[in-house]
Amino acid sequence: MKFIAVLTLLLLNACFLFAQKTFTVSSPSSSVLLQVSQKVDGSLYYAVKFKRKNVIIPSMLGLKFSNPAVTLSAFQITSVDSLTKNETWKPVWGETSSIRNHYKELKLTLIEKSGSDIQVTITFRVFNDGVGFRYEFPQQPNLNHFILADELTQFALTGDHKTFWIPGDYDSNEYLYNTSRLSEIDALTASTQEPDIAVKSVFDANAVQTPLMMKSADGLYISLHEAALINYPAMNLVLDKKNFTFTTHLVPDAAGNKAYLQTPARTPWRTILISDKATDILDSKMILNLNDPSVIDDPSWIKPQKFIGVWWEMHIGKGTWDLASGKHAANTENVKRYIDFASRFGFDGVLVEGWNVGWEDWFGNWKENVFDFITPYSDYDIQYLTAYAKQKGVRIIMHHETSGSVTNYERWMEKAYQYMVDHDMNAVKTGYVGKIIPRGEHHDGQWMVNHYQRVAEKTASYKIMLDAHEPVRSTGLHRTYPNWLASEAARGSEFNNAGKLGMTPEHTTILPFTRLLGGPMDFTPGLFHLQLNQFEKNRTQRVRSTLAKQLALYITMYSPLQMAADLPENYEKYLDAFQFIVDVPVDWDDSRTLEGEPGDFITIVRKAKGKDDWYLGAITDENSRSLKITLDFLETGRKYEAFIYRDSEKADWETNPESYTIEKRVVTSKTKLNIWLANGGGCAIRIIMLPK
Amino acid sequence: MKFIAVLTLLLLNACFLFAQKTFTVSSPSSSVLLQVSQKVDGSLYYAVKFKRKNVIIPSMLGLKFSNPAVTLSAFQITSVDSLTKNETWKPVWGETSSIRNHYKELKLTLIEKSGSDIQVTITFRVFNDGVGFRYEFPQQPNLNHFILADELTQFALTGDHKTFWIPGDYDSNEYLYNTSRLSEIDALTASTQEPDIAVKSVFDANAVQTPLMMKSADGLYISLHEAALINYPAMNLVLDKKNFTFTTHLVPDAAGNKAYLQTPARTPWRTILISDKATDILDSKMILNLNDPSVIDDPSWIKPQKFIGVWWEMHIGKGTWDLASGKHAANTENVKRYIDFASRFGFDGVLVEGWNVGWEDWFGNWKENVFDFITPYSDYDIQYLTAYAKQKGVRIIMHHETSGSVTNYERWMEKAYQYMVDHDMNAVKTGYVGKIIPRGEHHDGQWMVNHYQRVAEKTASYKIMLDAHEPVRSTGLHRTYPNWLASEAARGSEFNNAGKLGMTPEHTTILPFTRLLGGPMDFTPGLFHLQLNQFEKNRTQRVRSTLAKQLALYITMYSPLQMAADLPENYEKYLDAFQFIVDVPVDWDDSRTLEGEPGDFITIVRKAKGKDDWYLGAITDENSRSLKITLDFLETGRKYEAFIYRDSEKADWETNPESYTIEKRVVTSKTKLNIWLANGGGCAIRIIMLPK
Repeated sequence: MKFIAVLTLLLLNACFLFAQKTFTVSSPSSSVLLQVSQKVDGSLYYAVKFKRKNVIIPSMLGLKFSNPAVTLSAFQITSVDSLTKNETWKPVWGETSSIRNHYKELKLTLIEKSGSDIQVTITFRVFNDGVGFRYEFPQQPNLNHFILADELTQFALTGDHKTFWIPGDYDSNEYLYNTSRLSEIDALTASTQEPDIAVKSVFDANAVQTPLMMKSADGLYISLHEAALINYPAMNLVLDKKNFTFTTHLVPDAAGNKAYLQTPARTPWRTILISDKATDILDSKMILNLNDPSVIDDPSWIKPQKFIGVWWEMHIGKGTWDLASGKHAANTENVKRYIDFASRFGFDGVLVEGWNVGWEDWFGNWKENVFDFITPYSDYDIQYLTAYAKQKGVRIIMHHETSGSVTNYERWMEKAYQYMVDHDMNAVKTGYVGKIIPRGEHHDGQWMVNHYQRVAEKTASYKIMLDAHEPVRSTGLHRTYPNWLASEAARGSEFNNAGKLGMTPEHTTILPFTRLLGGPMDFTPGLFHLQLNQFEKNRTQRVRSTLAKQLALYITMYSPLQMAADLPENYEKYLDAFQFIVDVPVDWDDSRTLEGEPGDFITIVRKAKGKDDWYLGAITDENSRSLKITLDFLETGRKYEAFIYRDSEKADWETNPESYTIEKRVVTSKTKLNIWLANGGGCAIRIIMLPK
Repeated sequence: MKFIAVLTLLLLNACFLFAQKTFTVSSPSSSVLLQVSQKVDGSLYYAVKFKRKNVIIPSMLGLKFSNPAVTLSAFQITSVDSLTKNETWKPVWGETSSIRNHYKELKLTLIEKSGSDIQVTITFRVFNDGVGFRYEFPQQPNLNHFILADELTQFALTGDHKTFWIPGDYDSNEYLYNTSRLSEIDALTASTQEPDIAVKSVFDANAVQTPLMMKSADGLYISLHEAALINYPAMNLVLDKKNFTFTTHLVPDAAGNKAYLQTPARTPWRTILISDKATDILDSKMILNLNDPSVIDDPSWIKPQKFIGVWWEMHIGKGTWDLASGKHAANTENVKRYIDFASRFGFDGVLVEGWNVGWEDWFGNWKENVFDFITPYSDYDIQYLTAYAKQKGVRIIMHHETSGSVTNYERWMEKAYQYMVDHDMNAVKTGYVGKIIPRGEHHDGQWMVNHYQRVAEKTASYKIMLDAHEPVRSTGLHRTYPNWLASEAARGSEFNNAGKLGMTPEHTTILPFTRLLGGPMDFTPGLFHLQLNQFEKNRTQRVRSTLAKQLALYITMYSPLQMAADLPENYEKYLDAFQFIVDVPVDWDDSRTLEGEPGDFITIVRKAKGKDDWYLGAITDENSRSLKITLDFLETGRKYEAFIYRDSEKADWETNPESYTIEKRVVTSKTKLNIWLANGGGCAIRIIMLPK
């Protein structure tokens, strides 16, 4: 118990609430310091410092049950345990081939003091880049089933930080990020500015979602989030603007309860990620480390992959999901064209949306029986296309839009997965557009959290990979369920066609600091046709990016599942630039963030899995910028050929977005590149080791 | 349009609300008269008379939508259609081998007047014993999806009738019947007196359930109920005691809505059953006639049947459902004993409750994942017992207790039914003891109504017969789904072991006038061990019946599925009386109620299917009575042997319940029997045609 200093202060002071005991744990490198203190009344507070700077000042720990009706806010400490863990593990796929898990742990075993005798353990893990803690309820005589009314955990901050936030919401995480001081958070106003989000449930003007990114006046980057969200509702945070303290607000169920739990039970980890370097935030593996290891014994069937899809053409109004319109996109001929294109350029999959009957009446009416997930439209010859795709070495990716009717999906689920197996499909994109059925449940409540997990488990049992759209935000569960390749769970590229706010150039510089900290996002980059033309009368918004930036996103928006989102005919126009998408890998041995600032820019370099090749992506917001990159990550003494896809000198996301330059040159670890990024621009570089 | 008299009154009166138009329809025999009137403001009212006596005085028709937000209470009448139907149809099984469906129909096609242009049709069917009407929404330009906020249908009665009621409740129909004046209805007090009902949701002191039986001061028997409850919540009735008017109150969902509908849509039939003879109420087929014909093309696999079961021994504490107690009843040896007993006496089935793992923690905690319906307890050798039962010519009846966790049941349902087929079972008893999951839904709401129907359809697809416990009350759907043999949906025999109110002697004289009007009940009669003994420490209540009455219930409580509820060892003590249960059929060519008075007594006689044998059952409440029965239903000129199972002269449900006499005599159609029923007693008679 070397690293825990127990201070018994017991000050003979008029104020009984002064700290009585304090437990202090520092991280392995001593960068992060956790202090847990107990007041005389038994209440517990935790505080976190980073390099001696306060990050979290004393903040309450506790929970409130509705059944039994007990508030767990004052405790007797029955034991204090500690350990140090230092291990390395290998993910099935990821940004790096191995991950170090190094922390010191403090475990407080507590008895609730008011007479309930309920036992709870709070486990803290202190990493060099942050802290995670959770509540655990062991099996015990005085507690079996219980219902959670509220979690009382607080996060008291040191000041009016700059923050990158979206409204707290029970149903949607598809908001554009707002950048403001904490004191300027206004979730209600932000929500009313978002007419394009299908289902919104904002509940408090001061509420925000996690992952929440902040930057303090003294230069610290702080992210609040959670890890391993299992059998529990998602956490929102409600700000007390007087003292800059966030309190957890869990997503309720139809009855107003927060969670139904049974011992042994545990909450997700509450996480505080901290650094004085923004790049460390992007490179952190803390959330993954706080998740359980993979439950899939033989993951050999799980393959990171790239795909194209019958999808964007519906968004821009060229085709439709439904058949009745007369413009049905998922018809045999059109899908055959996509399969041909995928095969020609080595894509693994072709997503086909709108393949199944039901789209004529699928949305907006809380309708329960919409799709059956096994009945194709009459113009979609699935037998023929299955055989054709197989012959072409491509797999069709299944689409299961539930329209939020989850009871219906659960009824069809097993038949639907068997249907996939029968048709040679091993990846599914799920969707939850609409109000949830069971009615009264929310996308981010405990029941739906359990549903998403059930889908991950059930698909795994059929050896199916999963890409969930409109689910709860990611919390690192792709470690435990590596078949769950990616989720949407944020505003993705589809909002490039959304009306009012759309997709700003800065959005992609914020997502890696927020949403992506929880796990891969199916952002669907790769749009090449960026301005509107006369055939796109349905479009209300254009793509606010340069073409070169679209390439860079394949590096800066990490995912083992990457779409090339645009239409084949648009790629045909720029096949030289498209080559980067053809070449870019989706699995990596190493990844390093070279520079970054949320809301401004990001430059990341990654090393291809099992190869000596590197790929660099650099993006900027609406402002142009010049990069100086030293390629010192390359092996010294070796030569490489670099293929540089960059904005041309005339490029600008507003006036000239499709103007790019491709340059080829030999580089070494000593090369310094000067790269100019246009307004809303980016740069992608492929660096291939040359033979000796 | 012969039988409809249209009266345009348009009185030049200060009161604009006076009737403008009246449509009058009389029943085929003219016993029932329906009048539908429209006031100047467009509102519609209906009234019903029986043999010139008012039954329903002008009562409002209408509905209120929450989306679109329209109240449908004033209409323009666009067409008036009528027809007469006179047909005879044959049920798959039933109380009679054929049923006459004879009514006159009035169909008003209406346009809502406030500007919505919503079209609704109200269809009235006028039978000789009552009226049914429903609202129908055809496909139309101005209405597709809609959400029902309330149904506004009223039933205005003529006075402070005597009524047999149970509290209006969203979740339970297992109340003991109260007998009072309408003005004395007090649902809240009645509910608080029922500690033995697992889940109660009483919502209004003046609310009652249907079927609601009433008797007017002028001698009319009136029953309010509904028929063909499909895709709609159950109807409760809330009384305005000032004017004795009931208004419908539909069971809400988790969001507070009543129903989600899409055109074409229709409500259940609202039914008013009327007679001046109580016996006509019991013989009415109106509710069956208002249901759709069978959807099962080949019903040859559906078999009315008798069964015994491992069930009552758990209720009385001899055994348990769970294994951990050490008294697990559903063990291989014990079930083998039941199979032997069933085989010896020709029973079709053996119900086995507590066969599957999960009973150690199944109730009371709104727990979602309780049972999987396919995993037997370790001491239950299902392979062996399946083979053993087959060899003995008996089938095991499956038990699916869901504990109210319906999302879980729906996930397992198909596997569970396949498991039944794989184990030679073709009948299932379902159970819904507990608060419903999806949380916030109720047993009697639209979502659950759809679930029960889904179970009926899904079991039918596996050729499985259904016996639903704790479902919504029956509304005649056994015509449409004849595999749905019976439901509980009321206080059954199990309450003979319930603490406070238990099961009164009069309860079984009320059930046929209330709950059973909707369809067969799995009441589980046949208890022979009626007083407590020293081994029954768990019991808090004894059986309030004589043994002879237990036999009579097989006739008076019609069901194609009848249990012999007591333990084999209790039947062994009274094998001579048990012979009646062995002999009594469960399917009939004819049935006639000879006499009856709700709350007092019932005598019914039935003719065995395809035979010349008759069976008579007579029961009384807590008061003894003398019956004089003329056997004029027998074929004239033929001799019969009658086996009379009656209370002995010393019998009394309280002091001497197991005292009975069995008498054998030759009878003819001219025979007059004098039968004495003890307090809480009854009589059962088997009458076999003798050879010429």
